[in-house]
Amino acid sequence: MSDIEIARAAKKIHIRDVAAKVNIPEENLIPYGHDAAKINFDFIEKSKSNPDGKLILVTAINPTPAGEGKTTTSVGLNDGLNKIGKKSIVCLREPSLGPCFGMKGGAAGGGYAQVVPMEEINLHFTGDFHAITSAHNLLSSLIDNHIYWGNELQIDQRRITWGRVVDLGDRSLRKVNVNLGGVSNGFPREDKFDITVASEIMAIFCLANDIDDLQKRIGDIIIAYKRDKTPIYARDVKADGPMTVLLKNALMPNLVQTLENNPAIIHGGPFANIAHGCNTVIATKAGLKLADYVVTEAGFGADLGAEKFLDIKCRKAGLTPKCCCYCCYS
Amino acid sequence: MSDIEIARAAKKIHIRDVAAKVNIPEENLIPYGHDAAKINFDFIEKSKSNPDGKLILVTAINPTPAGEGKTTTSVGLNDGLNKIGKKSIVCLREPSLGPCFGMKGGAAGGGYAQVVPMEEINLHFTGDFHAITSAHNLLSSLIDNHIYWGNELQIDQRRITWGRVVDLGDRSLRKVNVNLGGVSNGFPREDKFDITVASEIMAIFCLANDIDDLQKRIGDIIIAYKRDKTPIYARDVKADGPMTVLLKNALMPNLVQTLENNPAIIHGGPFANIAHGCNTVIATKAGLKLADYVVTEAGFGADLGAEKFLDIKCRKAGLTPKCCCYCCYS
Amino acid sequence: MSDIEIARAAKKIHIRDVAAKVNIPEENLIPYGHDAAKINFDFIEKSKSNPDGKLILVTAINPTPAGEGKTTTSVGLNDGLNKIGKKSIVCLREPSLGPCFGMKGGAAGGGYAQVVPMEEINLHFTGDFHAITSAHNLLSSLIDNHIYWGNELQIDQRRITWGRVVDLGDRSLRKVNVNLGGVSNGFPREDKFDITVASEIMAIFCLANDIDDLQKRIGDIIIAYKRDKTPIYARDVKADGPMTVLLKNALMPNLVQTLENNPAIIHGGPFANIAHGCNTVIATKAGLKLADYVVTEAGFGADLGAEKFLDIKCRKAGLTPKCCCYCCYS
Amino acid sequence: MSDIEIARAAKKIHIRDVAAKVNIPEENLIPYGHDAAKINFDFIEKSKSNPDGKLILVTAINPTPAGEGKTTTSVGLNDGLNKIGKKSIVCLREPSLGPCFGMKGGAAGGGYAQVVPMEEINLHFTGDFHAITSAHNLLSSLIDNHIYWGNELQIDQRRITWGRVVDLGDRSLRKVNVNLGGVSNGFPREDKFDITVASEIMAIFCLANDIDDLQKRIGDIIIAYKRDKTPIYARDVKADGPMTVLLKNALMPNLVQTLENNPAIIHGGPFANIAHGCNTVIATKAGLKLADYVVTEAGFGADLGAEKFLDIKCRKAGLTPKCCCYCCYS
Repeated sequence: MSDIEIARAAKKIHIRDVAAKVNIPEENLIPYGHDAAKINFDFIEKSKSNPDGKLILVTAINPTPAGEGKTTTSVGLNDGLNKIGKKSIVCLREPSLGPCFGMKGGAAGGGYAQVVPMEEINLHFTGDFHAITSAHNLLSSLIDNHIYWGNELQIDQRRITWGRVVDLGDRSLRKVNVNLGGVSNGFPREDKFDITVASEIMAIFCLANDIDDLQKRIGDIIIAYKRDKTPIYARDVKADGPMTVLLKNALMPNLVQTLENNPAIIHGGPFANIAHGCNTVIATKAGLKLADYVVTEAGFGADLGAEKFLDIKCRKAGLTPKCCCYCCYS
Repeated sequence: MSDIEIARAAKKIHIRDVAAKVNIPEENLIPYGHDAAKINFDFIEKSKSNPDGKLILVTAINPTPAGEGKTTTSVGLNDGLNKIGKKSIVCLREPSLGPCFGMKGGAAGGGYAQVVPMEEINLHFTGDFHAITSAHNLLSSLIDNHIYWGNELQIDQRRITWGRVVDLGDRSLRKVNVNLGGVSNGFPREDKFDITVASEIMAIFCLANDIDDLQKRIGDIIIAYKRDKTPIYARDVKADGPMTVLLKNALMPNLVQTLENNPAIIHGGPFANIAHGCNTVIATKAGLKLADYVVTEAGFGADLGAEKFLDIKCRKAGLTPKCCCYCCYS
Repeated sequence: MSDIEIARAAKKIHIRDVAAKVNIPEENLIPYGHDAAKINFDFIEKSKSNPDGKLILVTAINPTPAGEGKTTTSVGLNDGLNKIGKKSIVCLREPSLGPCFGMKGGAAGGGYAQVVPMEEINLHFTGDFHAITSAHNLLSSLIDNHIYWGNELQIDQRRITWGRVVDLGDRSLRKVNVNLGGVSNGFPREDKFDITVASEIMAIFCLANDIDDLQKRIGDIIIAYKRDKTPIYARDVKADGPMTVLLKNALMPNLVQTLENNPAIIHGGPFANIAHGCNTVIATKAGLKLADYVVTEAGFGADLGAEKFLDIKCRKAGLTPKCCCYCCYS
Repeated sequence: MSDIEIARAAKKIHIRDVAAKVNIPEENLIPYGHDAAKINFDFIEKSKSNPDGKLILVTAINPTPAGEGKTTTSVGLNDGLNKIGKKSIVCLREPSLGPCFGMKGGAAGGGYAQVVPMEEINLHFTGDFHAITSAHNLLSSLIDNHIYWGNELQIDQRRITWGRVVDLGDRSLRKVNVNLGGVSNGFPREDKFDITVASEIMAIFCLANDIDDLQKRIGDIIIAYKRDKTPIYARDVKADGPMTVLLKNALMPNLVQTLENNPAIIHGGPFANIAHGCNTVIATKAGLKLADYVVTEAGFGADLGAEKFLDIKCRKAGLTPKCCCYCCYS
């Protein structure tokens, strides 16, 4: 059977029953269908007094072209720990819609080591990436809007570093000229679109400790420079508040299940080549309060992904993995 | 109290209890939080044997600059009908994220005639508009991708009529040049971004009878012309299948409640200036099977919006309003 | 024989001998080859005390697609007047290089009523149009340069009305985006190229009374507006001096001959559709001091070209035609 | 006295008297004013039976920021040789109009070692650079025109290597998008403008042996590639004939004089950084037939300019300098 056939044949249990396995009451779930739910902040706040579980990192000696293997190993390891009676949860990254429509395919494990509902996870899921796309582009539009209405901040339109994003692999938009069409459309300039997973918002989102920290990090984004090369920040165009509003639901971790009905948190997904490549700090920390073992993964191979996990995510979030599992593919 | 204060003070009941009022079993709901749910197609299919309720159109003699009044009247009329013991449901349009961040504000009624959860409805809600944005832009990228890989269909890149969309009011993107940056980025051309509610997908989405009809309508979209002015269709670039996959959840109607806990369906929202300006046919028809009265609204004033409702939506969908309510503002 | 064969077979006399016919001493000629010369300003200044000849306008009842007929008639009329013993000179427009390479062909008369050296006249001739192209584009570059170096004048780059020119019919340049490529190349904006004959410099050049008047007229050009719609002038970017330097030789009228070795002045050539469509005031006035009759032509038909000749050129320059000759083609 | 005051105070002799010094009859001169003339091809052809003079190259050990020194040395050396009774001529490059309006100033020597008429030489002179600009841009327009009318040659518009030129230092045009504005204006693409002296036409022009060789070299220009990377040549769009017509007068060498009334030929002027940086082969060879000594210069310093002179120009043209003079500046 193909991965998708296996996923479709999965005997899923209701998400409230998955939650019950790690003692999350139903009233702390925000359901998205019957198979996925966000864990609300009340519960996360309350669980902070719990002791921390042990963090296990899955990485790879050698990366493979399509990056396969780490997620499957993580899911399998989590199912195995549960099988032998350990209370374990797996914390993974959300897949990008872009590559799903490209050659690379989705990213929810493979074979009998998958997370489900696979199709929802690979499509819109709980809308986190859409929220990040909206927040990112709201900032972009506020920058151009500021220039349009008099440019009080003296943004140098040749030195705008904040592009736009689209959650698709669309090479047509890599380099664009915007604000064309005359006086009422704005001041022409060169711009770019990245894929949403490459957004700085995605990286920030995954490093934020809570909603206030997220807003602060957003406010700190350098969006452009003046002629004299003085930096201009997102908060200078008053973007941090509205952007945080757009992200407030997305910041809650998503609970799903493995094929063996064990809990899995899938939350955040920055690219490992240009960002740290890890799921959210909020998800990993929540996992550590919920289970005795938390299996997580980092991007690419050990030389890049595990380094970023250890040097960036762990350092920023005060995490200490107790074990690293190195996959080796040939 | 302001609209938002009233909305926040609302005593909402669980969406399954709202559904129960119109006899929708919980297993036919796909919840999005506790206050909103999609009604699945199984139920819609089953309910087709029910008799139709009576359709009431709310329109306006004179449109107002911000378009206010019709939604409030519709919600109030629905609550009134329920108050006097009639089984009534209101079918409204989903608001666009764009104007919410502009001066116009959200669109979920006002005062004590609102639908809730107001903030969710005005932000991401159940993700329908994000799905439409993704589907629209997937087609855009497939067109440029087709040209990039040899242009077998001989698309004339000066005659591409299919632009891109963003769910924001962003004047910077009204007129853009895309595919810049050299050989690997594509063939430069002039392009545009519309706001998502102005997407042809939005119009089609609201006229579709079911998922197969939606796919057929998507396939029929003219995306470009050849040099000799022969039209090229969305199905020629094999876009109809993947786009429909992206839209399959979105096509299910969204159930919410009024401040008086009466059922409201909010689904679809094309602009009335460039499209028909009505909520989905699927929602209106589902409503007619659920209640004795369905209150709905059309865009702008009677001269434009009601005309489009009667001439386009009713004719295409085989609907016959039993009553038109003309608001008059001064 | 074709026009070009007739022209090539012409028995030209040395330009100093043509000049002698209207009493221009050789030292007042600036030769460009043996068949063409510019008449210097010393001579023009000295001849101002001469009495004026009679001005004859050749126009057309009905314009023809390629505009043929008026030049031929003018040249023929001039040759005829000379034949019957009158001292007559013909004052014509210089052809644009652009249409010469298009379908329209050159513009130096036809059959046995041509001016020669035909090929030189239709190509670079004495470089007048090249000088106008250079002067025009110098101003364009000074505008962008001013913006680049701090934009002290607060030019609104969306409201620059001064485009660029090329002396070719090149549709590719009708609408362009310039200043692309990053910080060191400038502030991106939308621009256009017109053909040189459509340059405002060409129109001004043909209305100027002398070099000082030309400089003043250049200084008066509105090149852009500020955000508050205040106009900005060419002299504000100090363009009038250098542009006049580039035009000083070009402003001297060009003397050539007809196939019958009668003197012809060919000087300036603005398009009649967007400008006045007449040869230079300096040439016409010089002609009136040199001969008893001056035959000249206006653009297109009587309804457009003769109107512009009478309403614009004659009024501005204080000229009064004694006779209008209406060609009628069928 | 400044350079320009010295130049203006020069006691020039008539160009026919300069020509007489090297035995060029007046009928072989094409005058451009009284101080400059082109030497026609009849004379050049006839003089080919003369013995060759000795070629002296002036170069520099160390280039200086503004490149000054070599021209002044060359002019001074030529005047000195004439002073001591040798029949010597100096062959120099024509200055670009661009830098004249920039900070660099003109290029006609300095102090009492200048060529005159200095202002004309630094402005339009005999129109050679205008002709090169026109020829270059004619090819550019023919390429876009070919694509517009069906693109029979299958030019890949992303792989057009032939840009456009302007005889100005205009950074705004370094990177542009052209063919914008809709169906009737063409297929949008990215383009560039170089300064005329950087045109490949300029380089070819200076290496051509005669008009037929020029046309062949123009025909050989690679203008673009197909999708499959097959090259497309200028002759494929039938540009070589019309371009050569535009260049035929320009190809005749220009005769002027030094302040001491000794003959100087100034002809052609490609940039030494991107081309060979030498005056025309035709001029140098003509000089060798006219005098016993020909003093010429190469671009920049010995390491770049003299290398290019020796490796490219001398090799291609069969020239052998008898002496190299190395200027050394500190």
